[in-house]
Amino acid sequence: MVQTNKQKVDEAIRHYLTYDIAVMDTPTAIAYTPSARTKVRRLRKRGVYDKARVHAILDEGIICHVGFVKDGQPFVIPTLYARAAQTLYVHGSAVSRMLKSLAGGVDICVTVTLVDGYVLARSAFHHSMNYRSVVILGRAHLVSARREKLKALRTITEHIVPQRWNEVRKPNELEMKQTSVLALPLEEVSAKVRTGPPVDDDEDYALPVWAGVVPIRRTLGEPVGDGRVLPGVNAIDVARISRPG
Amino acid sequence: MVQTNKQKVDEAIRHYLTYDIAVMDTPTAIAYTPSARTKVRRLRKRGVYDKARVHAILDEGIICHVGFVKDGQPFVIPTLYARAAQTLYVHGSAVSRMLKSLAGGVDICVTVTLVDGYVLARSAFHHSMNYRSVVILGRAHLVSARREKLKALRTITEHIVPQRWNEVRKPNELEMKQTSVLALPLEEVSAKVRTGPPVDDDEDYALPVWAGVVPIRRTLGEPVGDGRVLPGVNAIDVARISRPG
Repeated sequence: MVQTNKQKVDEAIRHYLTYDIAVMDTPTAIAYTPSARTKVRRLRKRGVYDKARVHAILDEGIICHVGFVKDGQPFVIPTLYARAAQTLYVHGSAVSRMLKSLAGGVDICVTVTLVDGYVLARSAFHHSMNYRSVVILGRAHLVSARREKLKALRTITEHIVPQRWNEVRKPNELEMKQTSVLALPLEEVSAKVRTGPPVDDDEDYALPVWAGVVPIRRTLGEPVGDGRVLPGVNAIDVARISRPG
Repeated sequence: MVQTNKQKVDEAIRHYLTYDIAVMDTPTAIAYTPSARTKVRRLRKRGVYDKARVHAILDEGIICHVGFVKDGQPFVIPTLYARAAQTLYVHGSAVSRMLKSLAGGVDICVTVTLVDGYVLARSAFHHSMNYRSVVILGRAHLVSARREKLKALRTITEHIVPQRWNEVRKPNELEMKQTSVLALPLEEVSAKVRTGPPVDDDEDYALPVWAGVVPIRRTLGEPVGDGRVLPGVNAIDVARISRPG
């Protein structure tokens, strides 16, 4: 039987989905359990369904990449985000502007990736990266209720610097209007994680080539004041900002 | 005149596009010059069209995020990539599998983002990040010619570690078949860059709040051998891998 192009694409996507996307059966489940549609098959070891590990990746990341579609063309935009329990809040962007016209919400994909190391093998083929990534599919809604919007903005601000909200001037009415926040439920979520050394072919271990991992870390430099900090105000303590990665 | 939803979305996207996407008029132009459609209007200072600066961002990044569409649903996947002149090579993924069925190519969006610093302001509203990002729109094709595919794999491998290709075992025929590479022309490209201190409202400079930038740097740890490195083989010199960021 000859496959149509549509069938071939569907199969290609199914292969993709089985690699990457897990569906959380219920929001209260302990883990994001894979459905038949989304079970990680291709590289089973890289599929991660444990909810705590998924949340840890989201909480450690600084920015996300938001994907949306316009006339069949995908767009991928970096922006700020933060998790609050089972909701991901995404800071205003073109998607927000789309959403103002679309009460029903917009299908988006939010991806957060942490890069942990270069994986150097004895063969070109087995070179890789150690990384942790989370992919969230779903329909995003604009946060419009004032109370939730303030909570979302606080969550995003404190994703940058914990406890910052109470130190700074809160948004005024104009700023509230100028800011958009999307809410995306953490329901259709998966993670992929690669850790550990390269895996070379048996015969390649005889090659005189260094193989292993070069860790990549995110470090913070000394805070640089903007030149208008009032006398007696201490610089931010970067320990407040540091994340495990 | 009442706008239809379609018109509102179009306008929202136009606002987005004017913010983010620049079209290079000709591949041989010195700079990626904005067209009328894509001129950066909203935050003009963040639009960057200089080709050398765009290339520098692409060359400094480690991974990209690839966006593609299936049945109206966007997907965003992290993967390896590398630039060779005016072409971006993207390492195999679900998009590659789609492409095997679609000779005409697939519309994708590739985004590379470098995160440079936390921008802490005196008001919640003016918190931000310093970052450099490049967004590339276009139709990706599968690289199938053996010579170009080898070149692409070499470019991607040496994007990880310069000069690595000649140190390691090259791909055999099976590995060549198992690897997919996409080629995306660097034609519809834009960059956004934010640098410098926060910009607070005039009256907020009287607040006793620290404001400035906390730089974020990528640093490399000590190489960790995989335990099977042959005697006399030196560990990789991380200076070879280090990027300016």
